[in-house]
Amino acid sequence: MVDHIAIIGCGAAGATAAMQARKFNRDVEISLYNTENYSQYSRCGLPYTISGKVKEFDDLVLMPPDSWNGLKIDAKFGVTVTNIDHNARVLTYNGPDGEATQKYDALIFATGAENADPPIKGLDKKRVYGLRTLDDAKALAAEADKAKKAVVIGGGLVGMETAEAFHERGLDVTVVEFLPHVLLAMVDPDMAEIVEEHCRNHGLKILNNTAAQEVTGTDSPKGVIVKDRVTEEQSEIPADFVVVATGVRPITNLAEKMGVEIGKSRGIVTDDKMLTNLPDVYAVGDCAESTEFITGTRMAGGLGTIAVRQARVAGINAAGGDVRFPGIVGAKVTKLFDLEIASTGLTDDLAKRFEVPIVKGSIKGSTKPHYYTGGLELKVKTYFNKETGKLVGGQLVGLEDAAMRINVITLGIQHNIDAKDLFDFENCYAPAICDTWDPLVQSADAARKRLKI
Amino acid sequence: MVDHIAIIGCGAAGATAAMQARKFNRDVEISLYNTENYSQYSRCGLPYTISGKVKEFDDLVLMPPDSWNGLKIDAKFGVTVTNIDHNARVLTYNGPDGEATQKYDALIFATGAENADPPIKGLDKKRVYGLRTLDDAKALAAEADKAKKAVVIGGGLVGMETAEAFHERGLDVTVVEFLPHVLLAMVDPDMAEIVEEHCRNHGLKILNNTAAQEVTGTDSPKGVIVKDRVTEEQSEIPADFVVVATGVRPITNLAEKMGVEIGKSRGIVTDDKMLTNLPDVYAVGDCAESTEFITGTRMAGGLGTIAVRQARVAGINAAGGDVRFPGIVGAKVTKLFDLEIASTGLTDDLAKRFEVPIVKGSIKGSTKPHYYTGGLELKVKTYFNKETGKLVGGQLVGLEDAAMRINVITLGIQHNIDAKDLFDFENCYAPAICDTWDPLVQSADAARKRLKI
Repeated sequence: MVDHIAIIGCGAAGATAAMQARKFNRDVEISLYNTENYSQYSRCGLPYTISGKVKEFDDLVLMPPDSWNGLKIDAKFGVTVTNIDHNARVLTYNGPDGEATQKYDALIFATGAENADPPIKGLDKKRVYGLRTLDDAKALAAEADKAKKAVVIGGGLVGMETAEAFHERGLDVTVVEFLPHVLLAMVDPDMAEIVEEHCRNHGLKILNNTAAQEVTGTDSPKGVIVKDRVTEEQSEIPADFVVVATGVRPITNLAEKMGVEIGKSRGIVTDDKMLTNLPDVYAVGDCAESTEFITGTRMAGGLGTIAVRQARVAGINAAGGDVRFPGIVGAKVTKLFDLEIASTGLTDDLAKRFEVPIVKGSIKGSTKPHYYTGGLELKVKTYFNKETGKLVGGQLVGLEDAAMRINVITLGIQHNIDAKDLFDFENCYAPAICDTWDPLVQSADAARKRLKI
Repeated sequence: MVDHIAIIGCGAAGATAAMQARKFNRDVEISLYNTENYSQYSRCGLPYTISGKVKEFDDLVLMPPDSWNGLKIDAKFGVTVTNIDHNARVLTYNGPDGEATQKYDALIFATGAENADPPIKGLDKKRVYGLRTLDDAKALAAEADKAKKAVVIGGGLVGMETAEAFHERGLDVTVVEFLPHVLLAMVDPDMAEIVEEHCRNHGLKILNNTAAQEVTGTDSPKGVIVKDRVTEEQSEIPADFVVVATGVRPITNLAEKMGVEIGKSRGIVTDDKMLTNLPDVYAVGDCAESTEFITGTRMAGGLGTIAVRQARVAGINAAGGDVRFPGIVGAKVTKLFDLEIASTGLTDDLAKRFEVPIVKGSIKGSTKPHYYTGGLELKVKTYFNKETGKLVGGQLVGLEDAAMRINVITLGIQHNIDAKDLFDFENCYAPAICDTWDPLVQSADAARKRLKI
């Protein structure tokens, strides 16, 4: 019998775990510990507070602090869990009211991730920011009101979305990307090139293959010294402020200390019940490592969709239920200057790393039939396992209907369809919407022929 | 050994069958007979020649007449097949060059459908049109240049798309629908109400539950006498011209004459190879009856997507291959005044007719997270078999991303997923695109709870 569930962290993962535990079990006691002073807010929405697409910071707060009372969940903000004695099942926390302890039966880690600062000199200056918290966003939104030049170090999802936001606010923005292209954790180089060209056409500066070496200036930034990794030439990009968005690492110190197993991805190892190696201890969200659906490789999800799905499973199981997390496919999507970029499953790079032999269906299609005005180019790639023909990934880039199409590929992956099945897919058709053979089906056809199925 | 394939009809079905037969078999002789003087054009695109969203009539022609030579396909236009002697495998046709015969080994009916004129007086007047052929569209586009008032009889897909087109050209348009709502072959009444309200807000007049009784006027229309089927009140709607769009019936006279079996839907009965009851005789597209995927009910597809998929199967099989048509799910979609209306599988009405007990997941969601500006309301319904939990249908109405979402439901139906599977679907998520739990997933959650799975 579980009398008390303690949940550490109140991001999307922690909050969802708490709510789902409550939905499943009206009687169990639930306590929630958050280091930040805010209740659950949307982390992914933060860049849009800068551009104004999210109007108020408060709009991002999905669970107002007092809403927890109504759910009979004891949520504490601005508190830090400092020690866990899992043998005695007691945790110690510290906050505005001093130190206190709480007995628990089940424990859920939803501690999230933190910015992993890269080896760049001068990151300790004022006006050098990450974008992980609501306070970060508030500081950055204030910069948009006064600054003229911004350098964003890191061209991943957060870096690109933040760069777009500042550009929309009229700033001169340069993205510095260490790798040959932006968004390589999400799409193949040829897709990234389309994104880069589109963003550059909108005035965003992107430096690929470029190492940020030092933030210059005395108190606050004067510029960023960068080195072209091909020519080795150095130069300084002027900057009033700097955003560092070079990735995150799971927060696992408390878990490690109590003997919870940490995986190769640096996340907490979990099974499909979201249980760790210790009894009654769960981990969910950005701090956890789960199984990738296609190959079974263990990985940190790092996505809001994954976090809430894992959290639901942990919340219900901790509260006495028995549900399973089906694994991470890894659907990722964003929109930059109206260009939709979508990806799911394995990219070319991931397939190589996971040693999955692949056959590609790659086409340039149109969102609408050619005879109907206003159709827009859509670049589609689908990936299939060369040996089994199974669908293992896909990417789309286009100015409309790219994101929603990736959903078809993800569902297909989750249900083990092959190239012939995707070719047999009965897409919807109308001149104002889409052609009789959807570009997805066309790409499956290309792969099917290569696979001879 | 097949030496010669004769294909009757050169719409999407006939043309696709010819092209796929050729792709599969370089050597087989192929002849194609079309009563119209045009080579394959997009029938679904016809309404958009009126509004100008399709700029030129010629834009709709997907296979220019001379393109057939390059494929070594003997395509004849403006000819009618008048007799078929299947014992001798000889057909007789009549055209501008007089009567001639052709020996064949395999025969494909792709004769399509024709307007089924309803019992309304005065339909023989000038300026009373159907919208089935390119010539119909040309006549209607000319009306848009001169007329002021139009009455469209029938609020199905073609009727509504045609009404929208004339409204966009500035005409005063009234749709007269016999049934309680428009689009009932596609969506449930509550969804149709949303569509009607939207169209009326844009100025389109829609009379539901209304029987058109007579087109008045001498030579050409003065108006249409209609009767309210509830109050039985009669009135006359002024009209400069009238469009009749009350549905179609398969063209099967030639097939019937040679002993091909006709089904309850009035289409030609086929198996999953698209073969009829006669050896080496196939039927595809609007003239054919196929199996509905979920219940196995035999039905005419009446959709371009179905036509080309059936035609591919028949073309390849006639040319010596062995492929199968997986059955009709029946995904339907359109856009009216920017509102996307999408449907797939069983509606409430179809489920009743096919005696499938259903559980519904019905929600009003938003296309984007509530904190992000610009999200639009999305009405979502998913249907599941009450006994098995399997997904059997879905409908979406909304100003964006409704059509593309129906594709997920269709693929799910084709792969026998249930409410729990759809709830476990890992939709893509980004503030600018969609929330963490897609409205589709939310609707599955509602149904899953009812189904207790």
